[in-house]
Parts: sequence; structure tokens; C-alpha cells
Amino acid sequence: MSNRFAVVLAAGKGTRMKSDLYKVLHSVCDKPMVQHVVDQLNELKLDQIITIVGHGAEKVKDQLGEQTEYALQEEQLGTGHAVQMAEPYIGGRQGTTVVVCGDTPMLTSKTIDELMKHHEQEDAKVTVLTTEMDDPSGYGRVIRSSDHSVDRIVEDKDASSDEKQVKEINTGTYCFDNELLFDALNNVSNDNAQGEYYLPDVLEIAKKQGDKVSAYSTPRSEETIGVNDRVALAKAEVLMKRRTNERLMREGVTIVDPDNTYIGTDVKVGTDTVIQPGCVIQGDTQIGSNVEIGPHTEIKDSAIGDGTHIKQSVVTDSRVGKDVSIGPFAHIRPASDIHDQVKIGNFVEIKKTSMAKNSKASHLSYLGDAEIGKDVNVGCGSITVNYDGKEKHKTIIEDGAFIGCNSNLVAPVKIEKGAYVAAGSTITKDVPEKSLSIARSRQENKEGYLERLNKSKK
Amino acid sequence: MSNRFAVVLAAGKGTRMKSDLYKVLHSVCDKPMVQHVVDQLNELKLDQIITIVGHGAEKVKDQLGEQTEYALQEEQLGTGHAVQMAEPYIGGRQGTTVVVCGDTPMLTSKTIDELMKHHEQEDAKVTVLTTEMDDPSGYGRVIRSSDHSVDRIVEDKDASSDEKQVKEINTGTYCFDNELLFDALNNVSNDNAQGEYYLPDVLEIAKKQGDKVSAYSTPRSEETIGVNDRVALAKAEVLMKRRTNERLMREGVTIVDPDNTYIGTDVKVGTDTVIQPGCVIQGDTQIGSNVEIGPHTEIKDSAIGDGTHIKQSVVTDSRVGKDVSIGPFAHIRPASDIHDQVKIGNFVEIKKTSMAKNSKASHLSYLGDAEIGKDVNVGCGSITVNYDGKEKHKTIIEDGAFIGCNSNLVAPVKIEKGAYVAAGSTITKDVPEKSLSIARSRQENKEGYLERLNKSKK
Amino acid sequence: MSNRFAVVLAAGKGTRMKSDLYKVLHSVCDKPMVQHVVDQLNELKLDQIITIVGHGAEKVKDQLGEQTEYALQEEQLGTGHAVQMAEPYIGGRQGTTVVVCGDTPMLTSKTIDELMKHHEQEDAKVTVLTTEMDDPSGYGRVIRSSDHSVDRIVEDKDASSDEKQVKEINTGTYCFDNELLFDALNNVSNDNAQGEYYLPDVLEIAKKQGDKVSAYSTPRSEETIGVNDRVALAKAEVLMKRRTNERLMREGVTIVDPDNTYIGTDVKVGTDTVIQPGCVIQGDTQIGSNVEIGPHTEIKDSAIGDGTHIKQSVVTDSRVGKDVSIGPFAHIRPASDIHDQVKIGNFVEIKKTSMAKNSKASHLSYLGDAEIGKDVNVGCGSITVNYDGKEKHKTIIEDGAFIGCNSNLVAPVKIEKGAYVAAGSTITKDVPEKSLSIARSRQENKEGYLERLNKSKK
Repeated sequence: MSNRFAVVLAAGKGTRMKSDLYKVLHSVCDKPMVQHVVDQLNELKLDQIITIVGHGAEKVKDQLGEQTEYALQEEQLGTGHAVQMAEPYIGGRQGTTVVVCGDTPMLTSKTIDELMKHHEQEDAKVTVLTTEMDDPSGYGRVIRSSDHSVDRIVEDKDASSDEKQVKEINTGTYCFDNELLFDALNNVSNDNAQGEYYLPDVLEIAKKQGDKVSAYSTPRSEETIGVNDRVALAKAEVLMKRRTNERLMREGVTIVDPDNTYIGTDVKVGTDTVIQPGCVIQGDTQIGSNVEIGPHTEIKDSAIGDGTHIKQSVVTDSRVGKDVSIGPFAHIRPASDIHDQVKIGNFVEIKKTSMAKNSKASHLSYLGDAEIGKDVNVGCGSITVNYDGKEKHKTIIEDGAFIGCNSNLVAPVKIEKGAYVAAGSTITKDVPEKSLSIARSRQENKEGYLERLNKSKK
Repeated sequence: MSNRFAVVLAAGKGTRMKSDLYKVLHSVCDKPMVQHVVDQLNELKLDQIITIVGHGAEKVKDQLGEQTEYALQEEQLGTGHAVQMAEPYIGGRQGTTVVVCGDTPMLTSKTIDELMKHHEQEDAKVTVLTTEMDDPSGYGRVIRSSDHSVDRIVEDKDASSDEKQVKEINTGTYCFDNELLFDALNNVSNDNAQGEYYLPDVLEIAKKQGDKVSAYSTPRSEETIGVNDRVALAKAEVLMKRRTNERLMREGVTIVDPDNTYIGTDVKVGTDTVIQPGCVIQGDTQIGSNVEIGPHTEIKDSAIGDGTHIKQSVVTDSRVGKDVSIGPFAHIRPASDIHDQVKIGNFVEIKKTSMAKNSKASHLSYLGDAEIGKDVNVGCGSITVNYDGKEKHKTIIEDGAFIGCNSNLVAPVKIEKGAYVAAGSTITKDVPEKSLSIARSRQENKEGYLERLNKSKK
Repeated sequence: MSNRFAVVLAAGKGTRMKSDLYKVLHSVCDKPMVQHVVDQLNELKLDQIITIVGHGAEKVKDQLGEQTEYALQEEQLGTGHAVQMAEPYIGGRQGTTVVVCGDTPMLTSKTIDELMKHHEQEDAKVTVLTTEMDDPSGYGRVIRSSDHSVDRIVEDKDASSDEKQVKEINTGTYCFDNELLFDALNNVSNDNAQGEYYLPDVLEIAKKQGDKVSAYSTPRSEETIGVNDRVALAKAEVLMKRRTNERLMREGVTIVDPDNTYIGTDVKVGTDTVIQPGCVIQGDTQIGSNVEIGPHTEIKDSAIGDGTHIKQSVVTDSRVGKDVSIGPFAHIRPASDIHDQVKIGNFVEIKKTSMAKNSKASHLSYLGDAEIGKDVNVGCGSITVNYDGKEKHKTIIEDGAFIGCNSNLVAPVKIEKGAYVAAGSTITKDVPEKSLSIARSRQENKEGYLERLNKSKK
């Protein structure tokens, strides 16, 4: 197979976004648009990917890292000029080059591959990705020759009334013979109203040279959406969400309301898992089978084991085992490791803490920087006092310990195996194995006190 | 009126659901599909309902209980074979039999009744429930005779291009003369590619015998949806949700966003109740008038009195009185009984607890296994210590008592009428009427301590 | 410019709402319908606005206050009779009068202004606001003369089959020459089936007199929706929500799911703010730039500074500074003033409390009636004991103080600069500057206690 290259156009500012953030860095389903594009290209195992950066170049590079090479377009002199920036990287080499905009997040590797294959099979020098729109107004129309190749592309404003009837439109994604591309770009002029060098002019040059210009029309027109403002961004979000959710449903996941369920494109979910409405599941997250999530649960960058239930809670950057029960209204903060059959109830916060099998923190607790054994019962309102105003310290609670309600474990402190802390105690020293530890005052009942108080006030 | 029977087909596995759960047990609006079908049939007061079970027979029986009789189809040899399993129950009797699939959850008793009445009025031996689809592709087309009776049903793959234009489709629900049904079934053969006995073959047999085959076309085509995969399940959910919410709105309930409000089909709601977005209200739940629910509130199997407000909370299997205020972020767990004018504030959990009129638990409390009188004030952070590591015990707080903040009531314990527990006390013994109870240490201020500490560290 | 008047019809009960609340007081996007109408009229700086009240007159007046004048229609004798009630206020004066129904919340000042300008430019005596409906059935059709003026309006039930094809419908909003209006109303009869005086009869009277009746057709037909039941109310909510969200997106706000984001029409939001799904933002609320809200956050009548993050929380009637972090699961109650860089974490409630720069209350706290300095750390589970069963008292925590976990500050009390309260203390007296205050019992470990206990039980 001949060389295959891609050029990603990611240098524009995107004025209509009205944003300090560069356009291609705006997210769709929690992933920047240009990252969607590069992820799809990477599935094709191309020989080289060159991203053209300009506005926000450093931030785009920070996002994509080493997944592509970069060419800097210092001045924004048009799309033709942008692609020309890739010449030092791939100019003069045999092969096929696809040019994709960084603001087309819906485009799939499947469609790009179909485009490139069509180009190669047709032995074309240029192939335009097209699609049919019910309402093509505003788009450039693709005018085909009698041999079905492309005769020309007419901008909407220049189209005759006959041409305006054409529903096949130019999506702005192209495939080129690589040598022709850079030869032609050197001949593109900026003799137009904007004074810019336009990439589509390469088509005319090719036609004039007698080269074949072909078009590949994709039936999946929603893939070709370019995002220029935040209304379009929200539409892309709807389409991407629908794509992900339909895929998961076909794989055996029940999503009660796919319109109201926000799952990132890289999230994995096992069969017979049920996702209730209002859930946001993002990042590098794996969810097992027979899990029940939600309603109104947010999970990010976490692994959730089979059979676990998580309701009205937030889980971030943590591992949760099998048959765990979390929520409602629980918060699992980063670096937590919740083992099988643990129960974390309402108004409980877990941070940088491990809880071994079958332990429970059922209500109103904060467990931070703690190492908790198995079969531990953390009573309601119990707190690890992990911060002394200067530093964080560690709490260790060993297997089978029982922590009474509303008690404070002032770290660093260790509660040993099977120890019992009485309710309302503030524990500052280690508690030995199987000991009872108590730190509270004796109860005093002042009988009739309130009656006397009322009388004295009269 | 002659006998009326129903046969519910619920024996299939539903491979395209990709599930360990049998197809008809998948839920739409929190109720298994087959239960929707049987609930609708039960409204018609039929003489007998026979559910054909096979895959997951025991689980289907567990779901439907004594609402139907059951016939077991041990091998899945086709829909005709399935219906034949009902012969020992209703074979040979005069009457009309409707055959309904267990995966058509949207079908209403109204439509089934219209179908049966049409069948009886037309004096037909077989009547097909049909509907018109804008896009009928994939469905069996109903070809009418010149006398408007059914000539034949043509599968999509066998349809001529003329027949493909027909928009009237077979929904898979049928009405039969009961005697004809079982006679004909005995003559249905399995001489086809799949080697199965097909129920629609009964139509052909009836036609050959010169019996009248009729069709009743329902205008409500959304009722005829059969759910074969989870994408269709999600669509059925949308339609069922819309049906319930529109009914409630017409009855005088304000639902701010019906697309984002999930109300079970059996839930009752009074007039002028306002339901904010993101609520999930399910099971055997009755909500009064002038109630405000939500946003983002989950209520299951509970009764809620007039004038109550519940925000961002979860209520399960409990009774809540009138003019109660709950939330945001409160959790009412099962077997709680909240009387009129009670206030339950943020981060409060109530479990198996009664609270009498006008009592308050406004913040950060856990009240479990408690009996609370009227006019009680439970201070912020107060906890019933109901579990000693072995057993649960009861807390009694009598009328007018005041429980100070962050106090522990170690059960079993009783706080008598008008008693006052000082903030920060751990109460282990009963507190007599109108007494003050205190269990805490005296405050000691170590002046300049921090300065000395800082100096000593230098 | 000649005088411009408006008459708002707000006297009807709205039987189909099935409500004790008068129809025009039902809310769309948290604002009563009649308030939407009056807000739009007020933008036009008209000379006088007269609201016709009848059912629920006092409640309508309470809502609109001094924004309009009021005329009482004691008996409901039809729309013509209703408008007649305005005669004592504006009758006999030169000018143009627009008559608007109080149940058309979507109508914009732009469209009303276009209607009035069209009326004035056409030199018409009556101008009907019309629009084209794809499905006009049920509406009155506007039949134009050859000179494009209005020949007549035909009710749906009286329309010939040709007239039924007309897609231009009467929206029920009109513009009149003010003198003609009241002259004609005196000649309208109630000689019809309902015995009512109908406003549209004025058109016929004008036509008979040879006066010009014009029509202005708005392309924005969704603005003309009249809300008669709660299904229509929910539809108006969808349209109003969409209008607000699209405006904000075009102004540079990212709204991840506009269908699931509920923003009041008067809310202001800065650029590059991101609003996650499930948020409800209402009332007099201003949100800065680069703010992140949600998911599932409710904000009402509050100001939120730039760069702040608020997740899964509720904020009411408060001010929040810049770069503040709130939530998840926090509750900011009215009259709170949260300064820059403050952190309010999970399960924290703030009420009528100020927190100065850089202070933190990270977990499970209640701060009520408190004045908190800068750089204060409020430990987990700490509580201001602001209520003694009779009155609320104030807590003062000065700059740099450290409040240990699970401590009670029994108000009135002051913790002075840099003081340190030990975990688990109940503080009843002021703590001097830089002092350590402690109020707790010494820890006692009863070694082997549990073993002895178990043995003694055998």
C-alpha cells in the first residue's frame, strides 16, 4: 500500500465561538474536537499526521502531545496556506493525503477510510468528501460531470438557481495525491476579496491539468458537521451522545433515557448494566456488568466492579469493587480504593482511602488519608481528623474494628484489630487490639432544671 | 357476552437484548413489559388469561404471580406452537381469544377491547390488529380484499413492489374464534426454513376453509411497537413516559419538563402539584395536591400529603404528611412516617422512624429506629446511635424535647417530654421530663499557646 | 409619534388548566405568563398599559405591581367586553392600541413593535397579527382581499373547504386605532350562541364603515402560541428555554445540553462559562465568566463571580465571589456572602453567613448566622450552635482561626484571630487570639475489654 498522510487544520481562532479558548479545543462529550479527529485518524494507522497549529498552538500541542507532528502557521492566510505548512514534513513524497478540519468532531475513521479507498480505487488526483443535505442552502454545491467525476464546486452565493437545487454539498474534507497537492498549492493565488489562499483552488488547478477530481458521498451526513459556534457545538454533543449511547444499548446496556445520559466516547460498560437518567460518565472509566448507576450520578476516570449500585453520587479517579453499594449523596474523591461488598451510605466522603471487603461507612462520615481493613463498621458522623492545620496525617483502622458514632480519630492514629471506640470519643492515641477506647464525660441529668429556669425568668 | 380469553406470549429469550434477563422482564417506566401487557388485559375482566412461559419461566411467574394462569412451552418451536400450549386450559370452548406478545408494552386495554369488539361485530373467525406506518419497510403488509376483509399478509421480503407500497402492517396481535384457533393450530405445519410452527398460518387455514379474516386498524400506531432490542426499549420508554405525563398534565399537574420527568404508570398525583425537572417517581406512590417535587428528587412506593415540598431528595417506602418540607439533599428510608408540618433539612437521613407534627431535624442528622414526638427540635449533627455492633435499638424522644447539636443518643434511650440535651453530649441514660442533660467537658483556653508553640519550634 | 397604548387581557380563569391558580399566573421558565407579556410591552416604552383583571384580580395585581394600570372586569362577558373596561383609562384619545392576551408568553417586544409599525405605516384602522401554520386546523383563517388587506376572518368550524386550505391564521393579537376601537366596541352585540361580546367583531364593524383592516404576518409562529392547558404550558416552556439558551450560546456560553438546562429569561451569564446538564438557574441571577456550573445545580437570585465552580449544589439569594469552589452537595442558603477563593465542600450548609477570602469549610458543616474572617479553616463536622430553642445567636470566627473537627461553637461566641479549637470540643466561651481551646475528656483504653466481655457472656 502506498503512503497515507493526514493534515489536520487546527490553526483557526473561531471568532464565532466568542471564546478565549481556541475553537478546536472546545469539547464535545468531554473531549476536545481536535482530539476526536486525531483519535479517529489514529485508528487508520497512517504513516504521518501533521497538525497545523496557529492560534493557541501551545495549548493544542498540550492536548494532542505526541499523537501527531505539528506545523506552525504563523499568519492565517487561508486553508491553502495552512496545508502548505505541512510541505516540509511530507512534501514531494508519493502517497495519498487526507485533509481534515479540526472542527469536525463527528467524522469517523470508517468514513475517512472509505474516502481514501474510493480515491485510490478511482485513481483520482483529488477526491472531495460530499454528502446530501435536505436543505443545502449555505453550502458549496458539488456539480458532477456526465462521467460522474466532479466538474466544479460552486459556492452558495455564486450558484445559479439550477445549481442551488443540487443537494450534494462539499463537506470540506478532501483527499489528494500528495505530490499533486503541494505542486498545486504553490500555484494557488490570493487574488480574491479576502486576500487568502484557498485549498479548494487545488481542484481547479487539477482539473485544468486534466487530472481526475472525484467525489465520495457519505450517507452519514451528520458526520460532516463543522462546528463554528456554540449552537453547533451543542448539536454535535447531541449527535455524539446518541452515537455512543446507541452503541452501548446494542451491546447490551440499558440506558433508560439516552437523551439525558452523558457518556464519554471512551467509557466501557458491561452487559445488563442499567444507567438511570441524569448520569454523567466520563474519561477513562470502565463499568462492569449488572451494575446500576444513577439516577444523577457522576463518574469520572474510575473502574466500577460487577453488581455494584451507585445512586445520586460522585466518584472520581477511584476504583470500586464488586457488589458495592454507594449513595445516595456520597462522594468518592480521587485515589480511593473501595473493595468488594463495601457499603458507603449517604453524606459520606471518601478521599485517598482504601476500604477492604465488607466494611461500612453508612452515614455522615469523612474518611480521608485512611487505610481501613475488612469488616470495619464506621459509625455515623465519625471523622478522620487528617489535617492539623499544617499537614495531612494517616489513619489506620484494622480488620473488624468498630468506630462509634460522632467520634474523631485524630491522625496519625491506629485503631487495631477488633477494637471498639465508644460513641462521641475523640481518639488521639492508638487503640490496642480488642480494646474498648472511650473519651467522653459522664452524663449529668439536672432534674426539673427547665422548670426552675422558667420560674426564675418570671 | 361470550367467553373472552387471552394468550400472552412470554416464552422467548430475546437474543437481541444481549441480556441474562428474559426479554419480557425488561422494564419500561420501571415495570416489566409483560406486566404492562397483563395489567392492560386485566382491565378487560376476561374469563381467562394464559401466559405462555418458557425461557425464564420461573422469573416470569414470580413477576405475574396469580394474575394469570401459566402454560409451559418447553421447546421454542414457533409462535403457533406457543399458543398451542394453552389448549389444555381453553381449547374447545366457545369464545374469543386475543393473542398478545409480551414484548408490546404500549398496547392499551382500549385498543385490545376495540379489536375484540370489531372481531365480534364483524363476525370474523380471525381479526388482525393492524396499523399504518409512514415507513412500513420491514413489516408484514396487510393485503385487503375488495370487501375490505383480509386477503393475505405478505412478509416484507416476499412483497412485490406494489405490495411494498401498502402502509397497513400486521402488528402481531390477533383475535381468534377460540374453537377455530386450536383446530387450525393442529393443522399448522413446520415445513419451512426455520422448522417452526407459525401462528399467522392460522389465517391461511381460515381463509381456505372460507372463514372470514378481518383486520382492525388502530390509529395509535405507537401502541403496536414490539421491543426486540434495547434501542427499541428506550423508545418505548419515551412513549410510555409521554403518555403518562400528558395524562397527568391534562388532569391538572404541572410538569415543567415532561421529557425529563420519569413517572411510573401507576403513580397518582393531585391537581396543582408542580414537578420540577429530573424527578423519578415510581411504584405505588400517591402524591397530593399543591405539592412541589424536585428538581432531582426520587420517590418510590410512598404517600406524600398536600402542600409538601421535597427538593433534591430521595424518599422510599414511607409516608409523608401535609405541609412537610424535605431537602435539599435529604434521604427518607423505608418505614418512616413523617407527620404534618415536619421539617427535614439538608444532609438528614431518616430510617424506620416516626416524627410527629411540627418536629424538625434541619441539618446533618441521622434518625434511625426512633419514635419522635411533636414539636421536637433535633439539633444539627445529632445522631441516634441505634447500633452497638450486634443489634439495633430504639430511641424515643417525647413531645417538645430539644436535642442539642452534635449529640449522640445511645439507644435504647428515652428523652422525656420537654427535656433538653446540651450540645455535644453523648446520652446513654434516659433523660427525665423537663430536665437538662449534659455530658461534656469544661472548656479550657490555653492563652498564647500557639505563640509559645511557634517559638519553641524555632 | 402618536400615543401608543396596550391592553392586556388577564381576566380569564382558564378552566382547562384545572387549577386553583388563575391561568395567566401559571409560570413559563419560572415567570408567570402575564409577567412575560408585560415585560415585553414595557420594553416598548408605551404611554399606558391597562391590564384587564377579573378572576384572581388581586393576585394578578400582586404579581405585576405598578408596572401597569388595572381595569376590573367583574363579569366575564367576552373579549370585547373585557377591552371595553379600558375605556375609562384611554377611551377617546388619539393613538394606537395593541391588545394582547395574557396567555401568550412567547410574544416578543420585537414582534409587537413590528405589528404597531406595520399598522401605522399601512394607515390601517385595525391590524391583525397573523402567522402561517403548517397545520392550521382549529384556528381562525385570515382571508385576504385582492389588495392584500383583510377581507374577513373565518372560524375553523365555519370555513369552506377552500378556506380550510388557507394557512394564515389569526393569532388573537390586534392593533387598533384607539378612537375606532372604543367607538366600535359600543356597537358590538352579544347576539350569539354564548351571549358574549367578541373583540373580532370590531373588524367587521370597521370593514362596514369602509375602514382599512390590515394584517401583519410574523414568520416566528412559535411566538403566537396561546397557553390553554398544561400540555401547552410545557410546550411553551420548551420554546422559551430554547430561546434563552440559544441566545446565551451565541453570546459565548457553553451549554452542554440545552434541552436539559433551565435558565430564567432574566439571568445573565458571562463568556466561556460552561453549564453542565441538569442545572436550574433562575430569578435575578448574574453569573460571571469562566464559571463552571453543574451538573445538577440550582441557583436562584444570586451573583456568582468569575472562575467559580459549583457542582451538584443549591445556592439561593446569596453572593459568591471569584474562584470559589462549591460542592458537590453543598447548600448556600439566603443572605450568605462568600468571598473570593473560598472553598465550600460536600455536605456543608451555609446560612446568613459571610466567609472572607480563602477560608474553607470542606466537609459536613453547618455555618449559620456567622461572620467568618479570611484564611479560616472550619474542620469537618464543625457546627455553629446558633439556636438555643428560643433565639438565634451569632458566631464570629476571626482571621486565621482553626476550628477542629466535630466541634460545636455555641453562639453567641467569638473565636479570635489565629485561635485553635481542638477537635471534638464544645466551645461556649470566647477563645482569645492565638489561644488553644479544648473541651474534651481524656482518652481511656480498656485493654482486652472486648475479650473479657465476650468471655463473661459465655
